[in-house]
Amino acid sequence: MAPSGKKGILERLDAGEVVIGDGGFVFALEKRGYVKAGPWTPEAAADHPEAVRQLHREFLRAGANVMQTFTFYASDDKLENRGNKLGFTGAQINEAACDLAREVANEGDGLVAGGVCQTPSYLSCKSEAEVKAIFKKQLDVFVKKDVDFLIAEYYEHVEEAEWAVQVLKETGKPVAASLCIGPDGDMHGVSPGDCAVRLVKAGAQIVGINCHFDPITCVKVVKMMKEGVEKAGLKAHYMCQPLAFHTPDCSCQGFIDLPEFPFGLEPRILTRWDMHKYAREAYDVGIRFIGGCCGFEPYHIRAVAEELATERGILPAASEKHGMWGAGLEMHTKPWVRARARRDYWEGLKPASGRPQCPSMSTPDSWGVTKGHADLMQQKEATTQEQLKPLFEKAKSH
Amino acid sequence: MAPSGKKGILERLDAGEVVIGDGGFVFALEKRGYVKAGPWTPEAAADHPEAVRQLHREFLRAGANVMQTFTFYASDDKLENRGNKLGFTGAQINEAACDLAREVANEGDGLVAGGVCQTPSYLSCKSEAEVKAIFKKQLDVFVKKDVDFLIAEYYEHVEEAEWAVQVLKETGKPVAASLCIGPDGDMHGVSPGDCAVRLVKAGAQIVGINCHFDPITCVKVVKMMKEGVEKAGLKAHYMCQPLAFHTPDCSCQGFIDLPEFPFGLEPRILTRWDMHKYAREAYDVGIRFIGGCCGFEPYHIRAVAEELATERGILPAASEKHGMWGAGLEMHTKPWVRARARRDYWEGLKPASGRPQCPSMSTPDSWGVTKGHADLMQQKEATTQEQLKPLFEKAKSH
Amino acid sequence: MAPSGKKGILERLDAGEVVIGDGGFVFALEKRGYVKAGPWTPEAAADHPEAVRQLHREFLRAGANVMQTFTFYASDDKLENRGNKLGFTGAQINEAACDLAREVANEGDGLVAGGVCQTPSYLSCKSEAEVKAIFKKQLDVFVKKDVDFLIAEYYEHVEEAEWAVQVLKETGKPVAASLCIGPDGDMHGVSPGDCAVRLVKAGAQIVGINCHFDPITCVKVVKMMKEGVEKAGLKAHYMCQPLAFHTPDCSCQGFIDLPEFPFGLEPRILTRWDMHKYAREAYDVGIRFIGGCCGFEPYHIRAVAEELATERGILPAASEKHGMWGAGLEMHTKPWVRARARRDYWEGLKPASGRPQCPSMSTPDSWGVTKGHADLMQQKEATTQEQLKPLFEKAKSH
Amino acid sequence: MAPSGKKGILERLDAGEVVIGDGGFVFALEKRGYVKAGPWTPEAAADHPEAVRQLHREFLRAGANVMQTFTFYASDDKLENRGNKLGFTGAQINEAACDLAREVANEGDGLVAGGVCQTPSYLSCKSEAEVKAIFKKQLDVFVKKDVDFLIAEYYEHVEEAEWAVQVLKETGKPVAASLCIGPDGDMHGVSPGDCAVRLVKAGAQIVGINCHFDPITCVKVVKMMKEGVEKAGLKAHYMCQPLAFHTPDCSCQGFIDLPEFPFGLEPRILTRWDMHKYAREAYDVGIRFIGGCCGFEPYHIRAVAEELATERGILPAASEKHGMWGAGLEMHTKPWVRARARRDYWEGLKPASGRPQCPSMSTPDSWGVTKGHADLMQQKEATTQEQLKPLFEKAKSH
Repeated sequence: MAPSGKKGILERLDAGEVVIGDGGFVFALEKRGYVKAGPWTPEAAADHPEAVRQLHREFLRAGANVMQTFTFYASDDKLENRGNKLGFTGAQINEAACDLAREVANEGDGLVAGGVCQTPSYLSCKSEAEVKAIFKKQLDVFVKKDVDFLIAEYYEHVEEAEWAVQVLKETGKPVAASLCIGPDGDMHGVSPGDCAVRLVKAGAQIVGINCHFDPITCVKVVKMMKEGVEKAGLKAHYMCQPLAFHTPDCSCQGFIDLPEFPFGLEPRILTRWDMHKYAREAYDVGIRFIGGCCGFEPYHIRAVAEELATERGILPAASEKHGMWGAGLEMHTKPWVRARARRDYWEGLKPASGRPQCPSMSTPDSWGVTKGHADLMQQKEATTQEQLKPLFEKAKSH
Repeated sequence: MAPSGKKGILERLDAGEVVIGDGGFVFALEKRGYVKAGPWTPEAAADHPEAVRQLHREFLRAGANVMQTFTFYASDDKLENRGNKLGFTGAQINEAACDLAREVANEGDGLVAGGVCQTPSYLSCKSEAEVKAIFKKQLDVFVKKDVDFLIAEYYEHVEEAEWAVQVLKETGKPVAASLCIGPDGDMHGVSPGDCAVRLVKAGAQIVGINCHFDPITCVKVVKMMKEGVEKAGLKAHYMCQPLAFHTPDCSCQGFIDLPEFPFGLEPRILTRWDMHKYAREAYDVGIRFIGGCCGFEPYHIRAVAEELATERGILPAASEKHGMWGAGLEMHTKPWVRARARRDYWEGLKPASGRPQCPSMSTPDSWGVTKGHADLMQQKEATTQEQLKPLFEKAKSH
Repeated sequence: MAPSGKKGILERLDAGEVVIGDGGFVFALEKRGYVKAGPWTPEAAADHPEAVRQLHREFLRAGANVMQTFTFYASDDKLENRGNKLGFTGAQINEAACDLAREVANEGDGLVAGGVCQTPSYLSCKSEAEVKAIFKKQLDVFVKKDVDFLIAEYYEHVEEAEWAVQVLKETGKPVAASLCIGPDGDMHGVSPGDCAVRLVKAGAQIVGINCHFDPITCVKVVKMMKEGVEKAGLKAHYMCQPLAFHTPDCSCQGFIDLPEFPFGLEPRILTRWDMHKYAREAYDVGIRFIGGCCGFEPYHIRAVAEELATERGILPAASEKHGMWGAGLEMHTKPWVRARARRDYWEGLKPASGRPQCPSMSTPDSWGVTKGHADLMQQKEATTQEQLKPLFEKAKSH
Repeated sequence: MAPSGKKGILERLDAGEVVIGDGGFVFALEKRGYVKAGPWTPEAAADHPEAVRQLHREFLRAGANVMQTFTFYASDDKLENRGNKLGFTGAQINEAACDLAREVANEGDGLVAGGVCQTPSYLSCKSEAEVKAIFKKQLDVFVKKDVDFLIAEYYEHVEEAEWAVQVLKETGKPVAASLCIGPDGDMHGVSPGDCAVRLVKAGAQIVGINCHFDPITCVKVVKMMKEGVEKAGLKAHYMCQPLAFHTPDCSCQGFIDLPEFPFGLEPRILTRWDMHKYAREAYDVGIRFIGGCCGFEPYHIRAVAEELATERGILPAASEKHGMWGAGLEMHTKPWVRARARRDYWEGLKPASGRPQCPSMSTPDSWGVTKGHADLMQQKEATTQEQLKPLFEKAKSH
């Protein structure tokens, strides 16, 4: 039983139920005008609660069982680092985010998950104690607000994720751990299978992948994690919360390295039909916590819920406004659009980009630096023009 | 002076000011889970007001000066026709929509515009009197709620638009008229220039184009309208509210005919940088009422407002969360992403689709039917399976 | 009766027969190593006759009824202008080319056509008398060698083509006139219809289009020419010899302006199946002299001949080595390749480029200069580095 | 010293010289009208010697040091199997091919290589003795005609290649062995490294890859072979003769499985600039026998020779008709084309396909059958309509 009195996350997963996650808040709210790309910090929980509440509600209506608190990058070191000028403390933002998630979760069958993610302190080579102290500070709020479970998510280095899991475990709440890595493993080359084993050993009951790669890639990586865990004779549940962008051309750092990141990704946005395939593939490899990350809008989550409606025994509320597989088009004015009211039409569609002067694949930037490199030392201030100049030059010479 | 006590739409345009329109509600709310694709009707104004209010607010924050009442297809004949099962009357929906628009307009510098659009009755060859009666019924609400001005929008046949303008003119309020046609003119082949002349003669003070085609095409068509009006020795203001989808491959009925409509259009979504170009081109040809239609999200409108910030002397509220031309990336964690914090980078980007097995252009369906054809007679009920069968067959044989 | 004793070109066309032209020599021989791109001059007729003879023979085997003498750009002003260092005179080259064409024509049902094309003298604003003198010099050889008919081809300005026709007419031989223009007309904006009328009035019995655009475009332009001629109450036969490159993205100067010209055109090369469509469309609009220009290889001409095998009552000799519509694959080793031995497979194929980082359309260069502009004054010497520098700069700033 | 009195293949390679191979005869001659796609057999050596001689000559002019006898698939079992109706025996064809290769080789610095390739007998599970007997029969001609060296090429199964090498070794001539496999290894999953080791142990002095994949892939596979050989403490020379088609989307059987094979591959043809990259990469990984296979035209080989002109100390004869890196364009009529006369222009070009309705990548057919499967048993007769029917059905259901 979760603090909310609902069936807890582990009880659901142990029972073999499908748990649907929500979508990505920073990208969706950036497009709605409430998050700043670059810093990507969640002050909106405090300064525009109505916008955050509405997005939670849309994901709930779309079928999500998990309301993740909108606390991404809400550690004090990051907030300070990234130009938070509104004067909210990390604690204020985290508390507001917890309240919003709980309020909407209570409107339906939702659990509240508190999340902590990678820190600039780790990237700047601070000590284990210093990094853990930052996690603890965020965690205090989650404990106070009594969230239903915890997620350590968006880690590029398995070591930092282990530290996070170790801190989160102290609360006694269920802990999920999710890396943002691809098939080549973490930034130091640790394979997905080995990463998963280390996270399970650190105490995570659920392990998986979020962000950085598209659904097909992420499902593949979670499958590698699952094989690693099983080979090691361990047990875990699996989660997957990928991008809603096609990334067949990514290298190890995922969509960050694509020239289109973050303001030109539109042509890559997945259709709802792509999401049906994702949900089915994820389910087929044994993933039961299935959600989304950057780029996922409510209709993407609804598509996941619709694909798994039989398995879950329920259609999401928002399906009142959606005919399965285009059935709503039976009521369209034009007969040739009514002719699209069928599954095989949408399953077979190869959607055109409408951009004949653009390619289908990009060449990712690859600066080849990782934790420890001077280029990655973080600073509080926005990069100065002087600092930017060599970056611009280097980029142009590619 | 508008009923709201603000400077009216014509006063603004007469003074040479730029008026920014809002974006498309049916597509945005479909993705958020509140509108059903196929019927495309606006019951959400009555049954999910919080969602409609939030979207209005986001467009206002993004810089929109016009809050269009969410009354698209809210005529009784359409609502009945399209399976409105919630039992709201057209009047109830129209009233709720007016109240929401006014509430948010009052939070900033917004005008409320009531809109009427094409009717199934016209398509089914009902008489002028019958069609006008439908417009009048919707209008009663707009008069009662005292909107600031009126828009007759989304007409494929200039004749029906003329009828609408004639009805709207009776209120004494400013009237805008907007067709959803391309360079080839209306469905009966009336050229854009001739259409514009007829609409001005019918009494419209503002004429232009919305929906069905991408910004580049729509600006081109409005330019043709302007040339027609000027050649006829008449005067008018011009508006443009295009799709936020690239449609270089469309035929006369626009994106409706594309195989991707309406559930596979993602790869065609415009970036914010595409919107900068649109805003500049529209401004340069003399269009001063610049907004968006289907596909426009708040960040698209913000891009329009940012491009014209100098001309308008103001940045939109939502720009507090957006650095111009990618400037927010100066605060990104990775140096190679910071290197994208410059205008020439984003202006020159040719974004990849990430879909190597998809083409860049489609072949539009072209059934070649228009008003009067039996295929276009409208019915209340959803198309039956028996009726759909020949449509499916015909579609497959393409 | 032609000088060769065969049925002449006009007798064939008057009888409604299909006459198949040959393909492009400069491009094919450039790839084989015998023509230099840039100058594009035909010294190979004199210095590598075996290569020219073999190509003639391949086109004859492929079904061509016309052997065009390989005399493109073989006027003395051009040869001198373009760095002819071998010391052959224009007369020597033209004579050798005539002999080769005649030799191979006699191996089958081939007619020999002597061709003159646009001159640098015209571009450099020399007088009518000067330009005509150049045509006459080339013509002396054709008269001496008694070719079967004459073609004035590859003219961007209808005026120069008229001059050529007037000169050619003096021989009493049948005269064809072919421009390298698109739907927008010649470089001075004369429409295709008006161009055709002027050429017929100048004395051409056959008029049409060659080079610069793809088959679909060229057929469309010849159709415009035909409509012009018929509207003027005149009579003519029609010819079409397009590129074997797809050029949907060309502006008025055709493929010359594409960034890929001339060394990166490979992805645009037409398949044999594209040629079937071309042959059918050309036939359907009433064109009876159907051949090819740059990019056409023997198998392209064979495809034209195979498409029109019923109309012509004959299959070309080279079809002994080609099963219609892929039938030869019935003998392939692999069963899945044998499954491609059918017409609907190849008709429906949308061939992939294998280049995911390339676009499908280019932006043509458009320097917007035409005859009379200083940039187009021709010189004998290769452009110097000093002269190239501003060109490189201008090109980069696009 | 080779039989021809020239420096032999091994002497050249031992001395570190670059040896340039020729291009693909079956594809080039198919386009010229002398080879039938499907059977792909080389009767043209006997029935159209002038065409074969001309192609040899073009490759020699382009820089090739090796004239491979045009004896591909010229084993009696294959000729019989594939509908050879002209009545030439395998011996006659092989002899004619040797004479043509020798004649042209003597016109320059060319060596004659006799080639044997995979047999339908192996695919139909005939015994080692039966398969070896077939190789021996072909070999008798090569011995009689005293070719300079031997190539066992185009093997999908390393086992059959080993048998071939063992037979060829008995002549005492230098033996090269070339497989048509990709990074996944041979059809039975033997890795490239292991394949190479087995071939070297069987007696091959030169090992490598030809056909089936594009240059980038083939170079990568040869690199894997080299690593395998070196790891095994063995020594060999390396050769690479890839396709001139881009195949980023191939599975294990290479371009055979692409839907475009063999009549729709045009959009994939490599440019000469792609060939420069290929030559450089091949050279850089230590390959010294660098040539081409299907799709390679003379200008592709010339590009290889031009890229390695410094290393070889010589430009090919055909470069008299080619300015390096587009230099010939200095003499073009139009200034904007002269602006393309520079290396960085062509190196940076991303050539468009001109096919906006086609994708950039295909999905290969994958019937998943290999030697031993009933589907692959070979027969003499062309497949009957009855046999084709289930193949067509299966193909359509993909």
